[in-house]
Amino acid sequence: MQTPWDHRFAQRTQRMGSSAIRELLKLTEEPDIISFGGGMPAPDVFPANEMSEACVRVLRDIGDLALQYGSTEGFRPLREMIVRHTARYGIQVTPDNVLITSGSQQALDLLGKILINPGDRILVESPTYLGALQAWSAYGAEYVTVPMDENGMVTDALEDALRSGPKFIYVLPNFQNPTGVTLSLERRHKLLELADRYGVPIVEDDPYGQLRYEGENLPSVVDLDSQFRYSGEACYSGNVIYLSTFSKILAPGLRLAWVVAPAQVIRKLTQAKQGADLHTATFNQCVAYEVARGGFLDRHIETIREVYGHRRNVMLGAMDAYFPPGVEWTHPQGGLFLWGVLPETINAADVLKVAIEKRVAFVPGAPFYATGGGHNTMRLNFSHAKPEKIQEGIARLGAVLYEKMGLQVNY
Amino acid sequence: MQTPWDHRFAQRTQRMGSSAIRELLKLTEEPDIISFGGGMPAPDVFPANEMSEACVRVLRDIGDLALQYGSTEGFRPLREMIVRHTARYGIQVTPDNVLITSGSQQALDLLGKILINPGDRILVESPTYLGALQAWSAYGAEYVTVPMDENGMVTDALEDALRSGPKFIYVLPNFQNPTGVTLSLERRHKLLELADRYGVPIVEDDPYGQLRYEGENLPSVVDLDSQFRYSGEACYSGNVIYLSTFSKILAPGLRLAWVVAPAQVIRKLTQAKQGADLHTATFNQCVAYEVARGGFLDRHIETIREVYGHRRNVMLGAMDAYFPPGVEWTHPQGGLFLWGVLPETINAADVLKVAIEKRVAFVPGAPFYATGGGHNTMRLNFSHAKPEKIQEGIARLGAVLYEKMGLQVNY
Repeated sequence: MQTPWDHRFAQRTQRMGSSAIRELLKLTEEPDIISFGGGMPAPDVFPANEMSEACVRVLRDIGDLALQYGSTEGFRPLREMIVRHTARYGIQVTPDNVLITSGSQQALDLLGKILINPGDRILVESPTYLGALQAWSAYGAEYVTVPMDENGMVTDALEDALRSGPKFIYVLPNFQNPTGVTLSLERRHKLLELADRYGVPIVEDDPYGQLRYEGENLPSVVDLDSQFRYSGEACYSGNVIYLSTFSKILAPGLRLAWVVAPAQVIRKLTQAKQGADLHTATFNQCVAYEVARGGFLDRHIETIREVYGHRRNVMLGAMDAYFPPGVEWTHPQGGLFLWGVLPETINAADVLKVAIEKRVAFVPGAPFYATGGGHNTMRLNFSHAKPEKIQEGIARLGAVLYEKMGLQVNY
Repeated sequence: MQTPWDHRFAQRTQRMGSSAIRELLKLTEEPDIISFGGGMPAPDVFPANEMSEACVRVLRDIGDLALQYGSTEGFRPLREMIVRHTARYGIQVTPDNVLITSGSQQALDLLGKILINPGDRILVESPTYLGALQAWSAYGAEYVTVPMDENGMVTDALEDALRSGPKFIYVLPNFQNPTGVTLSLERRHKLLELADRYGVPIVEDDPYGQLRYEGENLPSVVDLDSQFRYSGEACYSGNVIYLSTFSKILAPGLRLAWVVAPAQVIRKLTQAKQGADLHTATFNQCVAYEVARGGFLDRHIETIREVYGHRRNVMLGAMDAYFPPGVEWTHPQGGLFLWGVLPETINAADVLKVAIEKRVAFVPGAPFYATGGGHNTMRLNFSHAKPEKIQEGIARLGAVLYEKMGLQVNY
């Protein structure tokens, strides 16, 4: 059907591709497919009972407030809880430094809206989180990239990239999406030193920071930056905007996340959010606060770590057993993903087609590269499928890889 | 504190003012102020018990789905329910014509994102909904306006405005925000005829359509347009994009609304929404569906109509009793608002300052005018305050108006 809207779409829509991941997710919704595609938490660790009890209490005790319009900045007790949470990691902020958003994706979108003029360059890791590229490309962003290795962003390549005058640096230091790798402490210091030298601020995206399965916690970039500037004092420097979320520690179906930023940035973000959705659902904020306030989340995160840590081990073990020689992969210390690199001659999108026939799915890596490349890479999620399914799915995928690479299965 | 972000804000932030309404709402949160300012439903009609029971059932029966990531288009059973709801009003659509949004404000924002190039003119009523101006100005929209009278948009002035080549017409035909007036049937036909002659499509925003307290329901613009083009057949024409919401019939704290549009427009909106917030909270969609599916909402809307209809009558009666001669106001047949016009010499913003001292508040009308004017107008909400508070608040406001207009109170 032709309509008068067809010729009326704005120019920016030409830069708004549909997310390859989400289109793929649809394809892999059929129940017999073992999907390592999405970035989904395990439903096994959803605290449905605690949520249910919290809903009942919220609607009984503060229903009038929870069902009503609320302030754009967010439910004050939840913002104060995030202030206390941030202080535990070493930084003093106030509620004026906190905005509640409808998932971290909205935080990325609002940052694009208030910061990016068409043609502005953003410095990103290569590969980087696809959702950030999707949000910012709609505002006309261009990208300058820095490669990754097993210790995160290669900071030796950072200085060249900074010389191109990026508006800000976007970094996912912990168990990065998509690669699963963690930025080393030495490189965190190097990143801050170079960012300071070139006067370029940082957006730190940290959805998985609390989901570490081995090794020591590293201080966040926002934390180190504040120490760096104030000689160890716990005062927030304002040079780093920090994003995190309830999606991975409570439930993504609530769409609840937060931004920590200088008060003047929060004010701009709040103006942008007023026009974007007025505010994040009051009910969801009240329920999340109610679930979290007795310390339940801290205990719950322990459970998540156990479940996901085990699944990561199962996936790594299965890959050792079933993947052909010539394929390499990362060994994440936390998070939801690991990253596979196939021989140069193999295209991961071609592998996916065969894999789906064999009822197993993953995400080809190319869309995570802002400036091209990565045709032979793949992202695998280890949090969602149950261990026996992970085992079975990796075996199927291994067989596909053997076939695609023209090798005889030797196990 | 100075930060490196201060000089990095995008140019579009200069067009993003903070909403006067929302800043005012903060001011009037003190409990002793009687506020006619917000557009808030009465907490008296929030179905907290039904919501509570629905939450428990959803988390017990489909918790895994309700707490997980969902599709950007929205929860399928809810979209199918909206298809059935739309059919009751005469138009056949499919789920491909429906997108669930995080409140109607998000629908307005996404429409701006996919349709508005900087400098595009949008044809709006004068005055019109402030939130639409706020959303679209961020994308560089300019406005051409058509005046309102007691029968809605003055269609005799429409042709001139259409000659300026607007991208689309934005209209709130039922109990308009802010004026409370309804577009007459004759003018609905005239609007469609002129829109067709000039080839300009329409965005119909209908948050209050089901909240009519007197008079006959009028067919929606989307309905009439489909009849107009298909000689009475119930097939959706695609020329009108229709917006509505659960905020006024269930609860605004859920942030749930919907768009009906041609499938290709829904696809573009879906791409934009992926980048904006991935999807609307799955949990909220499941709970709203669970509350609505047994027919509860139809019965609940009857309750809302009774409560709000009574409050409207109380406010109109109190205005007759307490407002000075020389002030005029609309007599809405539904919705949440009425509109006052003061003598030309009186500035409503000045009145508000004195009113707040007397512990009563409203919204000055000027910000609702896209191209200036309206300094002597005011919006009054009659849904939120209880009848005795309405009585008392209007008496206080009447006294302020007598004083400001230099008149002796004569009651």
